Amino acid sequence: MDQRISLVTLGVADLDRSIAFYRAIGWEPHPRSVAGEIAFYQAGGLVFALWSRVSLAEDSGVADGGGWGGITLAHNVLSPDDVDAILAAAGAAGARIARTGAPTEWGGYSGVFIDLDGHPWEVAINPGWPIADDGSILLP
Amino acid sequence: MDQRISLVTLGVADLDRSIAFYRAIGWEPHPRSVAGEIAFYQAGGLVFALWSRVSLAEDSGVADGGGWGGITLAHNVLSPDDVDAILAAAGAAGARIARTGAPTEWGGYSGVFIDLDGHPWEVAINPGWPIADDGSILLP
Repeated sequence: MDQRISLVTLGVADLDRSIAFYRAIGWEPHPRSVAGEIAFYQAGGLVFALWSRVSLAEDSGVADGGGWGGITLAHNVLSPDDVDAILAAAGAAGARIARTGAPTEWGGYSGVFIDLDGHPWEVAINPGWPIADDGSILLP
Repeated sequence: MDQRISLVTLGVADLDRSIAFYRAIGWEPHPRSVAGEIAFYQAGGLVFALWSRVSLAEDSGVADGGGWGGITLAHNVLSPDDVDAILAAAGAAGARIARTGAPTEWGGYSGVFIDLDGHPWEVAINPGWPIADDGSILLP
Protein backbone atom coordinates (compact mmCIF):
# COMPACT_ATOMS: atom_id res chain seq x y z
CA MET A 1 0.00 0.00 0.00
CA ASP A 2 1.49 3.32 -1.03
CA GLN A 3 1.51 6.10 1.55
CA ARG A 4 -1.34 8.16 0.26
CA ILE A 5 -4.97 8.99 0.83
CA SER A 6 -7.13 9.26 -2.29
CA LEU A 7 -10.43 10.31 -0.78
CA VAL A 8 -11.69 11.64 2.55
CA THR A 9 -15.45 11.31 2.93
CA LEU A 10 -17.41 13.07 5.64
CA GLY A 11 -20.81 11.71 6.57
CA VAL A 12 -23.46 14.42 6.81
CA ALA A 13 -27.07 14.60 7.90
CA ASP A 14 -28.26 17.09 5.29
CA LEU A 15 -26.20 17.28 2.10
CA ASP A 16 -27.55 20.60 0.84
CA ARG A 17 -27.00 22.21 4.22
CA SER A 18 -23.41 20.95 4.31
CA ILE A 19 -22.70 22.05 0.74
CA ALA A 20 -23.93 25.51 1.70
CA PHE A 21 -21.70 25.53 4.78
CA TYR A 22 -18.58 24.53 2.88
CA ARG A 23 -19.44 26.97 0.08
CA ALA A 24 -19.66 29.75 2.67
CA ILE A 25 -16.07 29.08 3.71
CA GLY A 26 -14.77 28.82 0.15
CA TRP A 27 -15.27 25.24 -1.06
CA GLU A 28 -17.00 24.66 -4.39
CA PRO A 29 -18.24 21.19 -5.41
CA HIS A 30 -16.79 19.64 -8.54
CA PRO A 31 -19.13 19.28 -11.54
CA ARG A 32 -18.90 15.49 -11.19
CA SER A 33 -20.82 15.68 -7.93
CA VAL A 34 -24.23 14.00 -8.05
CA ALA A 35 -26.94 16.48 -7.09
CA GLY A 36 -28.81 15.38 -4.01
CA GLU A 37 -26.51 12.40 -3.46
CA ILE A 38 -22.87 13.22 -3.05
CA ALA A 39 -20.60 16.24 -3.34
CA PHE A 40 -16.99 15.88 -4.50
CA TYR A 41 -14.31 18.53 -4.07
CA GLN A 42 -10.86 18.61 -5.63
CA ALA A 43 -8.61 19.20 -2.62
CA GLY A 44 -5.01 19.28 -3.77
CA GLY A 45 -4.13 15.79 -4.90
CA LEU A 46 -7.03 14.11 -3.20
CA VAL A 47 -10.79 14.21 -3.29
CA PHE A 48 -12.90 15.41 -0.39
CA ALA A 49 -16.53 14.25 -0.36
CA LEU A 50 -19.75 14.84 1.53
CA TRP A 51 -22.20 11.94 1.61
CA SER A 52 -25.07 10.68 3.72
CA ARG A 53 -23.65 9.52 7.03
CA VAL A 54 -26.11 6.61 7.08
CA SER A 55 -24.96 5.47 3.64
CA LEU A 56 -21.30 5.97 4.54
CA ALA A 57 -21.62 3.84 7.68
CA GLU A 58 -23.32 1.09 5.72
CA ASP A 59 -20.76 1.23 2.91
CA SER A 60 -17.89 1.23 5.40
CA GLY A 61 -19.19 -1.77 7.30
CA VAL A 62 -19.29 0.02 10.64
CA ALA A 63 -21.88 0.74 13.32
CA ASP A 64 -22.48 4.44 13.87
CA GLY A 65 -22.73 5.39 17.50
CA GLY A 66 -23.05 9.07 16.56
CA GLY A 67 -20.63 11.76 17.64
CA TRP A 68 -16.93 12.03 17.00
CA GLY A 69 -14.94 8.98 15.99
CA GLY A 70 -11.28 9.75 16.43
CA ILE A 71 -10.35 11.59 13.24
CA THR A 72 -9.50 15.28 12.98
CA LEU A 73 -8.62 17.18 9.79
CA ALA A 74 -6.28 20.15 9.70
CA HIS A 75 -5.82 23.01 7.29
CA ASN A 76 -2.51 24.84 7.48
CA VAL A 77 -2.05 28.47 6.54
CA LEU A 78 0.72 31.04 6.73
CA SER A 79 -0.41 33.72 9.16
CA PRO A 80 -2.41 34.15 12.38
CA ASP A 81 -4.71 36.47 10.45
CA ASP A 82 -5.52 33.61 8.08
CA VAL A 83 -6.34 31.33 11.01
CA ASP A 84 -8.58 33.94 12.59
CA ALA A 85 -10.30 34.81 9.29
CA ILE A 86 -11.14 31.18 8.52
CA LEU A 87 -12.44 30.57 12.04
CA ALA A 88 -14.55 33.72 11.76
CA ALA A 89 -15.98 32.63 8.41
CA ALA A 90 -16.74 29.15 9.74
CA GLY A 91 -18.40 30.56 12.83
CA ALA A 92 -20.50 32.93 10.73
CA ALA A 93 -21.59 29.95 8.62
CA GLY A 94 -22.79 28.05 11.69
CA ALA A 95 -19.74 26.15 12.90
CA ARG A 96 -18.96 25.84 16.57
CA ILE A 97 -15.61 27.38 17.46
CA ALA A 98 -14.13 24.78 19.78
CA ARG A 99 -10.87 26.67 20.24
CA THR A 100 -10.23 30.25 19.21
CA GLY A 101 -6.94 31.07 17.48
CA ALA A 102 -4.05 31.14 19.96
CA PRO A 103 -0.36 30.28 20.15
CA THR A 104 0.36 26.57 20.58
CA GLU A 105 2.95 24.89 22.77
CA TRP A 106 4.73 23.63 19.62
CA GLY A 107 5.44 27.16 18.43
CA GLY A 108 2.54 27.55 16.06
CA TYR A 109 -0.84 29.22 16.18
CA SER A 110 -4.13 27.41 15.78
CA GLY A 111 -7.81 27.14 16.48
CA VAL A 112 -10.53 24.60 15.81
CA PHE A 113 -13.97 24.82 14.26
CA ILE A 114 -16.53 22.01 14.32
CA ASP A 115 -18.61 21.74 11.18
CA LEU A 116 -22.38 21.29 11.16
CA ASP A 117 -22.03 17.51 11.50
CA GLY A 118 -19.52 17.51 14.32
CA HIS A 119 -16.37 17.08 12.22
CA PRO A 120 -13.48 19.11 13.67
CA TRP A 121 -11.02 21.10 11.56
CA GLU A 122 -7.92 22.52 13.13
CA VAL A 123 -6.79 25.66 11.31
CA ALA A 124 -3.11 26.15 12.00
CA ILE A 125 0.20 27.72 11.31
CA ASN A 126 3.03 25.26 11.79
CA PRO A 127 6.31 27.11 11.34
CA GLY A 128 8.17 23.80 10.95
CA TRP A 129 6.04 22.61 8.04
CA PRO A 130 6.53 24.64 4.86
CA ILE A 131 3.58 25.00 2.50
CA ALA A 132 4.44 24.60 -1.18
CA ASP A 133 3.01 26.88 -3.87
CA ASP A 134 0.37 24.25 -4.67
CA GLY A 135 -0.66 24.03 -1.01
CA SER A 136 1.11 20.73 -0.35
CA ILE A 137 2.79 20.09 2.96
CA LEU A 138 6.16 18.37 2.53
CA LEU A 139 7.79 17.38 5.79
CA PRO A 140 11.36 18.69 5.86
CA MET B 1 -10.19 28.83 2.98
CA ASP B 2 -8.46 27.05 0.14
CA GLN B 3 -9.80 23.64 -0.88
CA ARG B 4 -7.18 21.47 0.69
CA ILE B 5 -6.47 19.24 3.66
CA SER B 6 -3.02 19.58 5.23
CA LEU B 7 -3.18 16.88 7.86
CA VAL B 8 -5.39 13.90 8.69
CA THR B 9 -4.90 12.66 12.25
CA LEU B 10 -6.21 9.33 13.46
CA GLY B 11 -6.67 8.85 17.19
CA VAL B 12 -5.24 5.55 18.41
CA ALA B 13 -5.24 3.63 21.68
CA ASP B 14 -1.70 2.28 21.47
CA LEU B 15 0.72 4.23 19.28
CA ASP B 16 3.37 1.52 18.96
CA ARG B 17 0.78 -1.07 18.04
CA SER B 18 -0.67 1.23 15.38
CA ILE B 19 2.75 2.12 13.97
CA ALA B 20 3.44 -1.62 13.66
CA PHE B 21 0.11 -2.17 11.90
CA TYR B 22 0.69 0.60 9.37
CA ARG B 23 4.29 -0.53 8.86
CA ALA B 24 3.02 -4.03 8.07
CA ILE B 25 0.94 -2.63 5.23
CA GLY B 26 3.71 -0.42 3.87
CA TRP B 27 3.64 2.89 5.76
CA GLU B 28 6.86 4.18 7.30
CA PRO B 29 6.86 7.05 9.83
CA HIS B 30 8.74 10.21 8.93
CA PRO B 31 11.89 10.96 10.96
CA ARG B 32 10.17 14.03 12.40
CA SER B 33 7.79 11.78 14.31
CA VAL B 34 8.16 12.00 18.08
CA ALA B 35 8.87 8.56 19.53
CA GLY B 36 6.17 7.49 21.94
CA GLU B 37 4.06 10.55 21.21
CA ILE B 38 3.05 11.00 17.59
CA ALA B 39 3.82 9.43 14.24
CA PHE B 40 3.81 11.52 11.06
CA TYR B 41 3.71 10.10 7.54
CA GLN B 42 4.26 11.93 4.29
CA ALA B 43 1.21 10.95 2.26
CA GLY B 44 1.34 12.66 -1.11
CA GLY B 45 0.90 16.38 -0.52
CA LEU B 46 -0.49 15.97 2.97
CA VAL B 47 0.57 14.61 6.30
CA PHE B 48 -1.07 11.60 7.92
CA ALA B 49 -0.61 11.25 11.67
CA LEU B 50 -1.28 8.80 14.47
CA TRP B 51 -1.78 10.29 17.94
CA SER B 52 -3.40 9.40 21.23
CA ARG B 53 -7.15 9.44 20.72
CA VAL B 54 -7.63 10.96 24.19
CA SER B 55 -5.21 13.79 23.35
CA LEU B 56 -6.77 14.30 19.92
CA ALA B 57 -10.27 14.60 21.39
CA GLU B 58 -9.08 17.14 23.94
CA ASP B 59 -7.13 19.11 21.35
CA SER B 60 -10.11 19.07 18.97
CA GLY B 61 -12.57 20.28 21.59
CA VAL B 62 -14.90 17.33 21.18
CA ALA B 63 -16.39 14.65 23.42
CA ASP B 64 -15.41 11.13 22.41
CA GLY B 65 -18.27 8.68 22.55
CA GLY B 66 -16.05 5.95 21.15
CA GLY B 67 -16.66 4.11 17.92
CA TRP B 68 -16.91 5.48 14.41
CA GLY B 69 -17.59 9.15 13.84
CA GLY B 70 -18.65 9.62 10.26
CA ILE B 71 -15.34 9.81 8.38
CA THR B 72 -14.01 7.17 6.01
CA LEU B 73 -10.70 7.29 4.14
CA ALA B 74 -10.13 5.69 0.75
CA HIS B 75 -7.05 4.52 -1.08
CA ASN B 76 -7.42 4.12 -4.84
CA VAL B 77 -5.39 1.68 -6.89
CA LEU B 78 -5.35 0.46 -10.47
CA SER B 79 -6.30 -3.23 -10.41
CA PRO B 80 -8.53 -5.67 -8.53
CA ASP B 81 -5.38 -7.60 -7.62
CA ASP B 82 -4.04 -4.49 -5.86
CA VAL B 83 -7.30 -4.16 -3.91
CA ASP B 84 -7.22 -7.80 -2.87
CA ALA B 85 -3.52 -7.72 -1.96
CA ILE B 86 -3.90 -4.67 0.28
CA LEU B 87 -6.95 -6.15 2.00
CA ALA B 88 -5.05 -9.41 2.53
CA ALA B 89 -2.06 -7.57 4.00
CA ALA B 90 -4.30 -5.53 6.29
CA GLY B 91 -6.16 -8.61 7.41
CA ALA B 92 -2.90 -10.43 8.13
CA ALA B 93 -1.79 -7.42 10.21
CA GLY B 94 -4.92 -7.63 12.34
CA ALA B 95 -7.46 -5.45 10.54
CA ARG B 96 -11.07 -6.51 10.27
CA ILE B 97 -12.16 -6.98 6.67
CA ALA B 98 -15.55 -5.28 6.64
CA ARG B 99 -16.12 -5.87 2.94
CA THR B 100 -14.08 -8.18 0.73
CA GLY B 101 -13.08 -6.95 -2.72
CA ALA B 102 -16.01 -7.02 -5.14
CA PRO B 103 -17.40 -5.07 -8.08
CA THR B 104 -19.30 -1.93 -7.10
CA GLU B 105 -22.52 -0.56 -8.51
CA TRP B 106 -20.60 2.46 -9.85
CA GLY B 107 -18.44 0.32 -12.11
CA GLY B 108 -15.43 -0.03 -9.85
CA TYR B 109 -14.09 -2.67 -7.52
CA SER B 110 -13.56 -2.17 -3.82
CA GLY B 111 -13.36 -3.57 -0.34
CA VAL B 112 -12.97 -2.14 3.16
CA PHE B 113 -10.64 -2.88 6.02
CA ILE B 114 -11.03 -1.50 9.54
CA ASP B 115 -7.76 -0.68 11.28
CA LEU B 116 -6.96 -1.64 14.87
CA ASP B 117 -8.72 1.47 16.20
CA GLY B 118 -11.89 1.15 14.16
CA HIS B 119 -10.95 3.54 11.34
CA PRO B 120 -12.26 2.27 7.99
CA TRP B 121 -10.26 2.42 4.76
CA GLU B 122 -11.96 1.68 1.49
CA VAL B 123 -9.48 0.27 -1.03
CA ALA B 124 -10.86 0.87 -4.49
CA ILE B 125 -10.52 1.05 -8.21
CA ASN B 126 -12.54 3.90 -9.64
CA PRO B 127 -12.31 3.73 -13.43
CA GLY B 128 -13.59 7.30 -13.73
CA TRP B 129 -10.87 8.77 -11.52
CA PRO B 130 -7.42 8.64 -13.10
CA ILE B 131 -4.41 8.31 -10.79
CA ALA B 132 -1.46 10.54 -11.70
CA ASP B 133 2.13 9.29 -11.60
CA ASP B 134 2.58 10.86 -8.17
CA GLY B 135 -0.54 9.11 -6.84
CA SER B 136 -2.76 12.18 -6.96
CA ILE B 137 -6.38 11.88 -7.93
CA LEU B 138 -7.46 14.69 -10.25
CA LEU B 139 -11.17 14.70 -11.03
CA PRO B 140 -11.65 14.83 -14.80
